[in-house]
Amino acid sequence: MIDFVLLIVIAICIIALGLAAILTRNLLSQDEGTPKMREVADAIRVGAEAFIKRQYSTIAMLAIVTAVVIFAIYYLTGQQAIALATAAAFIVGAACSAVAGVVAMWIAVRTNIRTASAAQTSDGKALDFSFRGGAISGLIITSMSLLGVSLTYIALGADPTHTPFVIIGFAFGASFVALFAQLGGGIYTKAADVGADIVGKVEAGIPEDDVRNPATIADLVGDNVGDCAGRGADLFESTAAENIGAMILGVALFPIFGVSGILFPIVMCSLGLLASMIGILSVKGKDGADPMDAMNRGYYITAIISAFFLFGGVYYLLGATPGWMYFVLAGLVGIALSVAFLRVTLYYTDHHYRPVQDIANSSETGAGTNIIMGFSVGLETTAVPAILIGVSLLLSYWCGTMTGIPQGGLYGTAVATIGMLMVCAYVLTMDTFGPIADNAGGIVEMSQAPDEVRHRMDKLDAAGNTTKALTKGYAIGSASLAVFLLFNAYMADIAKLTGKAFEVVNLANVSVFVGALIGAMLVFLFASLAIRAVSKTAQYVIEEVRIQFKDPGIMAGTKKPDYARVIDITTQGALKNMVLPGALVILFPIVIGVTMKYEALAGFLMVATITGILLALILNNSGGAWDNAKKYIETGVHGGKKSEAHKAAVIGDTVGDPFKDTAGPSLHVLIKLLATLTLVLAPLFI
Amino acid sequence: MIDFVLLIVIAICIIALGLAAILTRNLLSQDEGTPKMREVADAIRVGAEAFIKRQYSTIAMLAIVTAVVIFAIYYLTGQQAIALATAAAFIVGAACSAVAGVVAMWIAVRTNIRTASAAQTSDGKALDFSFRGGAISGLIITSMSLLGVSLTYIALGADPTHTPFVIIGFAFGASFVALFAQLGGGIYTKAADVGADIVGKVEAGIPEDDVRNPATIADLVGDNVGDCAGRGADLFESTAAENIGAMILGVALFPIFGVSGILFPIVMCSLGLLASMIGILSVKGKDGADPMDAMNRGYYITAIISAFFLFGGVYYLLGATPGWMYFVLAGLVGIALSVAFLRVTLYYTDHHYRPVQDIANSSETGAGTNIIMGFSVGLETTAVPAILIGVSLLLSYWCGTMTGIPQGGLYGTAVATIGMLMVCAYVLTMDTFGPIADNAGGIVEMSQAPDEVRHRMDKLDAAGNTTKALTKGYAIGSASLAVFLLFNAYMADIAKLTGKAFEVVNLANVSVFVGALIGAMLVFLFASLAIRAVSKTAQYVIEEVRIQFKDPGIMAGTKKPDYARVIDITTQGALKNMVLPGALVILFPIVIGVTMKYEALAGFLMVATITGILLALILNNSGGAWDNAKKYIETGVHGGKKSEAHKAAVIGDTVGDPFKDTAGPSLHVLIKLLATLTLVLAPLFI
Repeated sequence: MIDFVLLIVIAICIIALGLAAILTRNLLSQDEGTPKMREVADAIRVGAEAFIKRQYSTIAMLAIVTAVVIFAIYYLTGQQAIALATAAAFIVGAACSAVAGVVAMWIAVRTNIRTASAAQTSDGKALDFSFRGGAISGLIITSMSLLGVSLTYIALGADPTHTPFVIIGFAFGASFVALFAQLGGGIYTKAADVGADIVGKVEAGIPEDDVRNPATIADLVGDNVGDCAGRGADLFESTAAENIGAMILGVALFPIFGVSGILFPIVMCSLGLLASMIGILSVKGKDGADPMDAMNRGYYITAIISAFFLFGGVYYLLGATPGWMYFVLAGLVGIALSVAFLRVTLYYTDHHYRPVQDIANSSETGAGTNIIMGFSVGLETTAVPAILIGVSLLLSYWCGTMTGIPQGGLYGTAVATIGMLMVCAYVLTMDTFGPIADNAGGIVEMSQAPDEVRHRMDKLDAAGNTTKALTKGYAIGSASLAVFLLFNAYMADIAKLTGKAFEVVNLANVSVFVGALIGAMLVFLFASLAIRAVSKTAQYVIEEVRIQFKDPGIMAGTKKPDYARVIDITTQGALKNMVLPGALVILFPIVIGVTMKYEALAGFLMVATITGILLALILNNSGGAWDNAKKYIETGVHGGKKSEAHKAAVIGDTVGDPFKDTAGPSLHVLIKLLATLTLVLAPLFI
Repeated sequence: MIDFVLLIVIAICIIALGLAAILTRNLLSQDEGTPKMREVADAIRVGAEAFIKRQYSTIAMLAIVTAVVIFAIYYLTGQQAIALATAAAFIVGAACSAVAGVVAMWIAVRTNIRTASAAQTSDGKALDFSFRGGAISGLIITSMSLLGVSLTYIALGADPTHTPFVIIGFAFGASFVALFAQLGGGIYTKAADVGADIVGKVEAGIPEDDVRNPATIADLVGDNVGDCAGRGADLFESTAAENIGAMILGVALFPIFGVSGILFPIVMCSLGLLASMIGILSVKGKDGADPMDAMNRGYYITAIISAFFLFGGVYYLLGATPGWMYFVLAGLVGIALSVAFLRVTLYYTDHHYRPVQDIANSSETGAGTNIIMGFSVGLETTAVPAILIGVSLLLSYWCGTMTGIPQGGLYGTAVATIGMLMVCAYVLTMDTFGPIADNAGGIVEMSQAPDEVRHRMDKLDAAGNTTKALTKGYAIGSASLAVFLLFNAYMADIAKLTGKAFEVVNLANVSVFVGALIGAMLVFLFASLAIRAVSKTAQYVIEEVRIQFKDPGIMAGTKKPDYARVIDITTQGALKNMVLPGALVILFPIVIGVTMKYEALAGFLMVATITGILLALILNNSGGAWDNAKKYIETGVHGGKKSEAHKAAVIGDTVGDPFKDTAGPSLHVLIKLLATLTLVLAPLFI
């Protein structure tokens, strides 16, 4: 039997997809710029499509093997009844995630050229195009995630107390693909970027995005495959995993709320999608205005409408308890946390505030002090977010307890997480806007457009940098709120499998402590390998660019460099080097769980998550701060471009690149992958 | 009643102090070198003594306030009977730690000049002198720690089941002083080093330790106050805290072993001190030989003799259980872990192995890639140590369980910790040897001694760098093994105070999880502030050196720079900037414990410890690897000195300085400070 509220979810998703279709049609009908622009854009598109094709072929093979393993594990551990369903859910989740990534990339490589063309006449129009390009991705990815969960739930029988435990396969499939998509894309984008900068800017002394540099197109391809496709897959699996985790918690409340408590998460997210549509449509670019103003206004509109929907949704679905208002409060805690995280991230990565200025100051005494200060700022950025997360968890737990229902506290944290997730589609829009603007800027630069066009794009590009940093803050904030509910979903799953309560993860138990230690270590080791992968792949790029630069025709600008060769080398390198870190984070928890059993694995999972959240904050924010310190100096302070301080700041930016665009975002996925992996493979650990 | 075995401990300590006295007399009778050397050495001595005097005055004030607070807490929480005793034990521990630091510094500033003088004729003799200087510190510090614990135990009544809970004040006093000593000294030494390098090497292009650089003397003072005094205080509190923690666990075994189980830790450590004396006396320098050979041989001798003593000690004191052999095995696990940690650290920081070579290779493409690779290596170094610690904990716990006595597993980990601590005096000797050799090298350089003397000292200096890295590995290894027993001591303490069992720290409990998150964050925040403190203090140094360099007489070498002024500025800066990070790590656990109570605080403590261990490994090893990559390039590879690769490697080394000599070692102390602080202030958290 299909519940009525599920139809609401499906209806809203269809509306969102319809809006996306309209926006896409409008966008595709726009002008594609000068022939020179088209030449650059075509090269980017071809490169991105080639990479995505090869990347997803590799991932598909890995996913099929994993699906077989999942089937075998369930079959051999006495779970024959759901073996096929879990493996199938995994494949569907993986496929949906892949489609999400491909769509994000497909839109981005078509929006960039139209944005560049619009910038010839109007910066307001350029903002509109790039923002709407982001919106198309945001709407499609979010509605696919909700549709995927809803339809899989229906297909698996829609048994409220049973299906949520089977549908976890979907979440694991999504995380699995997201890990490799983010990792491979992240390695690609930064290897090309670092390689292009080192040989181009540092060794040959030519500007960024110079047509003579054979690695520039690869660098622009990277924005699409890393930032668009990778982050699209990341946020797709976030919504999937967090919704499913909350549904599992809802099972415990079945006697009170019935199926409403279980479907509550996806219904609320679909209402959030509706709010996001209104927010998106409210954004209108204006010539000469700061693009951040329009986007921030849209964000606040989305958040406020979401708050009203939250009130209505809780009343309708969870009104069975007299204390339902406390659930509304818990949801508001989540929405407030999303706003607070954006503000904190802005403080640490915007040049109007102390941290970035400190880094810029310390560039005057060289690269050494620039790096020391940036790293110190990165470490510092853990403080306020950790306290915010702690307070939000305690507060939403308290709210849940005040409703007076059993396990209410836990469900309170789930409601807070869902509150935070409601604005997801809007955030994803802002997130994808960034790399599109960045790409359009590159096209304008490489097509040697007039200065005024470049200035228009520079402004948009700077806003894109800010939104990229902000949305990373949001991603890690929502992940940290979600993990607590995912742990508890894992514990509920184990309890269901063993048939006895599992409520204690005792850190004073030596095996749990060792599990926790290994968990924390895995996060550092993963970050090490992700960063190393960039460095290794960049070496191939550097060697190739150096060879091409030996050709005097290329440096003189009379001969076109071989962009395709660099793209090919980067693709091969990224795909090769993503396997080791990816495999490691899948194998480690399995080994710990099989040898030391489920309680030690819970310790592993929880402390890995804590460490992962904090390390992701460090890497994302230090990288963002270094980048903006460099940009700040380029505005003319501390001697401006070409000064010694600028040289030092460029080195800081290079160090920050793999931090903020490879290791940091991959850690977001890692956190949720560990949670969904332990959920799905739970039968192995008992 | 004083137990017979306590007399053994006291007797061995007196023998060790006697040996230290003989070594000191011999050393002081040696030649003090040329007048030029004496001039440099005097300046270092005066600067170091001035800093230590001011530093310990500041620490003394902070300690007196803390003692009053401890007294008040105990008095007001119904523990009047032991309020005065605990506060007094704190003061005694603090005073002993201060004396340990002062002694280490006093010996070092007198050994450096004699080592420099010996290097005029023989490198074997230079090794003998500097190693024996280190031995004097090692023997005095270790025996003071054991004597302090023993005599405080006797003074507090020697009641086996009660006194261990009062004597924790001693351990907290020692940790308290060690934190500020290591932090202040670490800030001092690296601010002077970074400041001297940036203005001297980078801006003015003059060599390291050039007499014209006004910051060189401050840099050499830093070796004494940071590496000697700071690390002396660190290892003093390690032995004290770990012995006392193990004694508390022994209380639970009182019905089986009587007082033997409680005094076991200090008896074994005193036997280890005896083994270390034999090891120390076996080291004999030989002209032309690699100094590491002699020191490694001494280490293995110490470890083997310790293993025999372990067998005898366990048989004599714990023979009451038929399974006593398993305790011997647990102790051997500890000794083996100490050897394994040295090997792993060597692999990651010595240029004969892949990691340092990778960093050197990546210096060819500039500072950016050098830093990325170094940081990646640092993150990687957590992997094997974490697994080693995990396996050792599980193995020693298993050994303890096999003895068949209740709580045997826990006591097994305590025996392993004690096994690792047995070689402490020898390790401390190697550790103090490093900065003495470094200082002697500086004196030789600044007194413009002939080239052959410099070459002799360079070899010793390189060995000193290796031993410094190795002993940091040992310190963090022993700390990680010890923390598990310190947690359990805390839990035993809480159980004693509340009168009910406290055996579960449930990470699935929301307040424990939040405590754990905040604990991990505190470690990153502390590291941030420690690194920032170096950067801030270095800024003062840089400004002063730049001002002095404007005087043409100084650059021409005709006018002596004002060394004292730089020393004074560095002293003030270091003392000012150590207060914030120090105060933070004391206040944070108190706030968490008071607001969220003892179980959440246990989560805080355990996860802070895990994060602290791993971050210390990252910071120590990346710093050591960067340093040695630079030294490796200086041997002529990748273009040698003055090449672009070398410039990049110098920047990496600058970044590594505050990592490995300020934040990293301070984290060792932090870990144990948190454990002893929670133990002592336990009455507040119930």
